Amino acid sequence: MTVSEKSLANAIRALSMDAVEAANSGHPGMPMGMADVATVLFSDYMKFDPTLPSWADRDRFVLSAGHGSMLIYSLLHLTGYARPTMEDIASFRQLHSPCAGHPENFELAGVEATTGPLGSGLATAVGMAIAERHLNAQFGDDLVDHRTWVIAGDGCLMEGINHEAIGLAGHLNLGRLIVLWDDNKITIDGAVDLSSSEDVLARYAATGWHVVSCDGHDVADVRRALAEAVADPRPSIVACATKIGYGAPNKAGTSGVHGSALGASEVAAARDYLGWADAPFVIPADIADAWKAIGAKGRDVRAAWEERLASHAQGAEFSRRMAGTLPDDFSLDTYIDSLIANPQKVATRKASELALGAINEMLPETLGGSADLTGSNNTKTKSTGPLTRDDYAGRYVYYGIREFGMACAMNGLALHGGVIPYGGTFLVFSDYMRAGIRLAALQQQRVIHVLTHDSIGLGEDGPTHQPIEHVMSLRMIPNLDVYRPADIVETAECWELALKDAGGPSVLALTRQNLPQLRTEKASENLSAKGGYRLVAATAERKVVLIATGSEVEIAVATAKALEEQGIGADVISMPSWAHFEAQPQAYKDDLLPHHVLRASIEAGTTFGWERYTGIAGLRFGIDSFGASAPAPALYDYFGLTAAKIAPQIVAALNS
Amino acid sequence: MTVSEKSLANAIRALSMDAVEAANSGHPGMPMGMADVATVLFSDYMKFDPTLPSWADRDRFVLSAGHGSMLIYSLLHLTGYARPTMEDIASFRQLHSPCAGHPENFELAGVEATTGPLGSGLATAVGMAIAERHLNAQFGDDLVDHRTWVIAGDGCLMEGINHEAIGLAGHLNLGRLIVLWDDNKITIDGAVDLSSSEDVLARYAATGWHVVSCDGHDVADVRRALAEAVADPRPSIVACATKIGYGAPNKAGTSGVHGSALGASEVAAARDYLGWADAPFVIPADIADAWKAIGAKGRDVRAAWEERLASHAQGAEFSRRMAGTLPDDFSLDTYIDSLIANPQKVATRKASELALGAINEMLPETLGGSADLTGSNNTKTKSTGPLTRDDYAGRYVYYGIREFGMACAMNGLALHGGVIPYGGTFLVFSDYMRAGIRLAALQQQRVIHVLTHDSIGLGEDGPTHQPIEHVMSLRMIPNLDVYRPADIVETAECWELALKDAGGPSVLALTRQNLPQLRTEKASENLSAKGGYRLVAATAERKVVLIATGSEVEIAVATAKALEEQGIGADVISMPSWAHFEAQPQAYKDDLLPHHVLRASIEAGTTFGWERYTGIAGLRFGIDSFGASAPAPALYDYFGLTAAKIAPQIVAALNS
Repeated sequence: MTVSEKSLANAIRALSMDAVEAANSGHPGMPMGMADVATVLFSDYMKFDPTLPSWADRDRFVLSAGHGSMLIYSLLHLTGYARPTMEDIASFRQLHSPCAGHPENFELAGVEATTGPLGSGLATAVGMAIAERHLNAQFGDDLVDHRTWVIAGDGCLMEGINHEAIGLAGHLNLGRLIVLWDDNKITIDGAVDLSSSEDVLARYAATGWHVVSCDGHDVADVRRALAEAVADPRPSIVACATKIGYGAPNKAGTSGVHGSALGASEVAAARDYLGWADAPFVIPADIADAWKAIGAKGRDVRAAWEERLASHAQGAEFSRRMAGTLPDDFSLDTYIDSLIANPQKVATRKASELALGAINEMLPETLGGSADLTGSNNTKTKSTGPLTRDDYAGRYVYYGIREFGMACAMNGLALHGGVIPYGGTFLVFSDYMRAGIRLAALQQQRVIHVLTHDSIGLGEDGPTHQPIEHVMSLRMIPNLDVYRPADIVETAECWELALKDAGGPSVLALTRQNLPQLRTEKASENLSAKGGYRLVAATAERKVVLIATGSEVEIAVATAKALEEQGIGADVISMPSWAHFEAQPQAYKDDLLPHHVLRASIEAGTTFGWERYTGIAGLRFGIDSFGASAPAPALYDYFGLTAAKIAPQIVAALNS
Repeated sequence: MTVSEKSLANAIRALSMDAVEAANSGHPGMPMGMADVATVLFSDYMKFDPTLPSWADRDRFVLSAGHGSMLIYSLLHLTGYARPTMEDIASFRQLHSPCAGHPENFELAGVEATTGPLGSGLATAVGMAIAERHLNAQFGDDLVDHRTWVIAGDGCLMEGINHEAIGLAGHLNLGRLIVLWDDNKITIDGAVDLSSSEDVLARYAATGWHVVSCDGHDVADVRRALAEAVADPRPSIVACATKIGYGAPNKAGTSGVHGSALGASEVAAARDYLGWADAPFVIPADIADAWKAIGAKGRDVRAAWEERLASHAQGAEFSRRMAGTLPDDFSLDTYIDSLIANPQKVATRKASELALGAINEMLPETLGGSADLTGSNNTKTKSTGPLTRDDYAGRYVYYGIREFGMACAMNGLALHGGVIPYGGTFLVFSDYMRAGIRLAALQQQRVIHVLTHDSIGLGEDGPTHQPIEHVMSLRMIPNLDVYRPADIVETAECWELALKDAGGPSVLALTRQNLPQLRTEKASENLSAKGGYRLVAATAERKVVLIATGSEVEIAVATAKALEEQGIGADVISMPSWAHFEAQPQAYKDDLLPHHVLRASIEAGTTFGWERYTGIAGLRFGIDSFGASAPAPALYDYFGLTAAKIAPQIVAALNS
């Protein structure tokens, strides 16, 4: 017995409209419109095995139009993934259901990326496609030979990130990347032509993409277009002409069907229209079986792949890398010892380059890059040759002037697995890619952002380039580790912490200007792991505790010295990571920051938030306005961030 | 005596290389490369009068490639603006020089926009071009008839914001916008083709732009291309083939000349090459005179325009609007009185729509819009018809799914003057346009962001859509006013404050969910203007002060009620604006937040930073993780933000 593809697609439509109806919340329009395309994709093109969602050589599918989450939930359920169950789907958008409003990689195996912020999914897929070619170049066709598929809507294509993503993909000629565009001519506000007059395919063609169109409700035509896309060596976009909410006879083709439940009468009308007689959340056995059979097609392919893996010379290394485990012998101890032996005064961006020199030799999985600031971010080392369309084995991506695109591509690299991405730009431009950094944190991915020029210390470029609120505002993103190391030793320690944290992203905030090496004695452990530690203990009776980060630790040390010369004891706490410090036992924190002693923070950024450690009665030295254009020493003086200006204020506070 | 255009251009080159050399910091490559193009533009096309930089009908010139700031400083000086003086130029990039590293609108008249963050200048120019057509449609050719010119580099074009900006400009067919692309094939990392393979002109053509190319060092060819651009009814991009650092014989054409001083020997070689014999900061009299003559050309045009203005029926209104002054009789008092008379339970996004209904009737200068969330942001009112390519008089822009493009366009609208822009998206997507919001603050522009769905209260859409750190992280941007009103009355008050603050941008953080009207008595003043005020005073002896914002004020009121029922006196402070509260006298702040009383904050976002008002010993109720997908009431309960869960913790703290 053959089940028609229309029936297979209608199962997606039924589940989508019923789940949204039950929740009285959600987006039925996209899953109903793209059901036919998705059916062709999953039946004939996608390489996957629901019994092993983590199979390394599976095709990746990214639902960039994440609001259409019922499409992927339907597909995962129908093809036989353990989750979501039908109960999960029936509790769509309810607390603790894995079927969240938007698809979340940490909720369901088979959801490759957390999507919803428009455009970011497609940009993430670009990273996955880079990872595939990179690992293919390193491990060969036997282990790595898969595609990355994307479903994207007009929103994904109109967002600026789309330009960055497809520019990078076209430049690197990522032929394994295929975007299925839900070309339904509708956005939330109404017709697409309310806000756009663009020839989308011409734009893609201008960036080196293969373009093809099809009728998204004609499965034969969809199959033809996908075949063309697969055959073409360039990345492909397939414009799938669809009707949003296809199957809802009165509402299809309107923006009204995008983001609201259809309502009982229209659901009933859709059942009639589609010839779907069953109750909500019931799939006829023949259709369910046909979907299960589709899900079973990949099992043998996967088994054959596992045999190849078992006998592959690089099999163990490949598995280690895909598991995200660092080599057992990975350590920066020897490197750090060498720093202790030969103290150096360097910018922490340079310190980062030196640390990376050691790291990149030890870890073949690091994949670096910069958004066109390679020489300023110091992100390239001698073991990282360029990754190009002609040599995907390279370990350095020239991301171009595409910060957000870089951040999302790095998320995709990490989500794919097998590589540890890091990339650089100026800290102030974290604003350009903040949504990408947040998605790394939400998705729990090890992505390392090398953000240099981290304060007014960058000097003459002035307020457009000087971070003020950036370090602090990044600290408040959940699950993001922000490090601001004070010298070359802390920089190495922070790199080690960032690499060892497989469950989330890190930011390294690094200076342009040179900093003395403050850590000149061998420590028994990674002191930065505590987040904050006593770098200098008071000699005279302790009257003040100075807390500083990064380049201002040097200033705190000088301030302490000036105070000690007046008989005022001062501790200096270096605090490279607030998050790690927060995680310490209360007794440790109280010992470092005793409540009965005056506490003062020094950081060349906003003072906002430092009340946490200084208390309201403490002092906070920082900058609560925009910066200015001048040489760095003049700026530090102008903004009052020198020992000569700080010490007297502390004396005054102690005497008041 | 005729001075050649080459000599005119060489004056720009000489000033640029000498200023950078003196500062030993800066970017000589772009000004030297684009000097010929800029000379043609300013001599033959730009409409301007250095004696009146604020002339409303002047052409706008935006140096989107802001790192090449010496180009605009040279032009302003040479054409006769009062500033920069030659001394200003000689102190390029030094503290207090108006010739900052990047051009800043608040430092120099004639600098139309603060640029440097790549791509944002061009996107800002789109807003200026919209303002021009809009005011032209409202006031006619006699008063408004000018162009917007942009110089942009590869960085500006590669950034994602470029896609959004040109998509909007093409859609609105902004024919008065002309972009001169410094097509030098170089980026910081090296050749453009390291990171891009795009056919830029094909991409522009795909979005409805007119495209034309020229040799950027052949002034006749530049003139031909500019004439074509002016003649074409579409927005134009002129690809100017240039050599970066033209004139520096050994370094031109390389990335080495982009961002560093040339060095003494190369400066000497350039002097030879260009035949420039004079000392640094000396311009030969004939060349100086020729430039001054160019600067004088606009004077008569400007005088004629002023005569037209003086006799124009709408002249006074036009002048008021360009001055940015609200009508004398503008007030929301009557509207607010009507709210007091008839209390309503509405979402603050709906309250904002109602306030806008009144505002848009009273203020013809408001120009609204949304990034494709019109029905969700509630930004459209009946007096704001669509602004389209066929009707620029409309007062509502369908910005499309282009948040960053919208933010920058709004900056340009405000910088142009004559309009007050506001635009909507979801608060979480402030991350997409954060760099644009920051530039509004830096540029001191009245831009109003209507950011709805401001917490977990949006419900089922889940963590990708739920702001956690956003309100707090926006509060720390200098010169940005963040308002989070608690009910319909506060929403109107906050709108009034945002409109009356001509010197900076505002964010209104608004709910999706309904909120009761808490302000039911007529106040003698705008209470939100104080930032925080006592909404409820304790009846029993005051033991705790509850501080809340937005949707959590309702919860604070319920918590206070629960506590009072146990004989525990509780004040409730509604704090719609931290910035306004900070500006109050210390005695006012101490009266509201007495140090000897337990203080507790309630806000459905990060608790980070609330120590400022609760003290370390206080309590902070909020959410320090990502959100979740569920109906809003379930989420408030899950995250512990209900009176039932908060009150017992306060009792426990009081008893501990």
